[in-house]
Amino acid sequence: MKCLALESSSMVAGAALMEENRLVGEIRTHYKKNHSERLLPMMDQLLTSCECKLKEVDFFAANVGPGSFTGVRIGTGTVKGLAHALKKPVVSVNSLEALAIQNQSFKGWCSPIIDAQKNLIYTAAYEMHHGEMIVRQSPDVFHILEWLEKLKKIDKPVLFSGDAAEMHQQRIKEFLGEQAIFADVLHRMPSASAVAMCGIQKAKKQELISPEEMIPLYLRTSQAERAWKQKQMEKEGTHS
Amino acid sequence: MKCLALESSSMVAGAALMEENRLVGEIRTHYKKNHSERLLPMMDQLLTSCECKLKEVDFFAANVGPGSFTGVRIGTGTVKGLAHALKKPVVSVNSLEALAIQNQSFKGWCSPIIDAQKNLIYTAAYEMHHGEMIVRQSPDVFHILEWLEKLKKIDKPVLFSGDAAEMHQQRIKEFLGEQAIFADVLHRMPSASAVAMCGIQKAKKQELISPEEMIPLYLRTSQAERAWKQKQMEKEGTHS
Repeated sequence: MKCLALESSSMVAGAALMEENRLVGEIRTHYKKNHSERLLPMMDQLLTSCECKLKEVDFFAANVGPGSFTGVRIGTGTVKGLAHALKKPVVSVNSLEALAIQNQSFKGWCSPIIDAQKNLIYTAAYEMHHGEMIVRQSPDVFHILEWLEKLKKIDKPVLFSGDAAEMHQQRIKEFLGEQAIFADVLHRMPSASAVAMCGIQKAKKQELISPEEMIPLYLRTSQAERAWKQKQMEKEGTHS
Repeated sequence: MKCLALESSSMVAGAALMEENRLVGEIRTHYKKNHSERLLPMMDQLLTSCECKLKEVDFFAANVGPGSFTGVRIGTGTVKGLAHALKKPVVSVNSLEALAIQNQSFKGWCSPIIDAQKNLIYTAAYEMHHGEMIVRQSPDVFHILEWLEKLKKIDKPVLFSGDAAEMHQQRIKEFLGEQAIFADVLHRMPSASAVAMCGIQKAKKQELISPEEMIPLYLRTSQAERAWKQKQMEKEGTHS
């Protein structure tokens, strides 16, 4: 079972090829956010270096967000296109579970946090239990302080990862003290290998879907949409 | 502080570019063991995709073993050559600490085990304590059962990684029961990013050395050397 996964939901761009018990190869950069130019050449490079033909891939996985609106569209669009052309199924992986799975040997709650601007965060909470990732909080949007209040009430260590973990580090430390642990630099950002790993687990649970069924997971509307709605409301206000 | 790390001590070949708080890029394959052909092109690809010139690298890191004799020679030789030509310092990272650092959020002992043939293993044990990796057992060679006996006496969970973890999984489970945890597929094998991370930590502790000072860490002599010594001894026996 060969899974090809793409990651582009943050500043990290990546491609990974995974078999059930082996990460065959991975390329990732955390550099410029020109994912639309980089993603396909990256994937081609990876396949060439693993001597794997695109048609030998059994299914594709993409990070469907939450995260960068444009990044998520690039990743899901590319995966949907590839899978449609090759008549292969796909699997949707959300960015929070992909971040959590990178730290699955941690005993406690994994709480990836992704910046949603203005002190809002996308988050979720997962806990490993006998090799299964249990969802303690489904993906949602919170004010950072509201989320920390919730976490304070659980009597367990919490591991923070994601771009907002660094951003809010001081505040989290002040609020949670020794309860808060921060993912190291190898496990802080999303990766295509983590998306592939979630993808394989989901494929085993029969969560493969057709490329047409893959939709980005946006927990809130984009800044552009909010601005447009605001304008519409103002317009309607003027007309009424 | 830019660190370029190469990994070739096992079936995995990889190159990673890391700054203090960011994994700028990484390429890795777990595929064919033709590291001598792959390592330099891999590094060039990585530098190109991160738009980093070789001379902008501040120091180089290599996995000095224990591990594959040939693999370790390729990796250290390449790093020594690059650093010598560019007049840059290097840092030696042993394969066991590089494996352990990948699982540093684990509470308990990290015991990477690398196959040394005939039920022998290269191993060490590390425990994280306030963000510092404490050495509980320095790198050494053990018979797998002798090592498991030792681990059984400590009253802590043990995380196994490395190629021999999969190989001896059944025996470890029988011996240690629930005390034994196994690193997942993302954290089982060495990676250049882990070597880079160890490298940066060591550079901060003034452990940079000149390329001439970098030597592979062989905990036992190679099969070829053992066979040669055996022959010599037999010869001497005949002559006496």
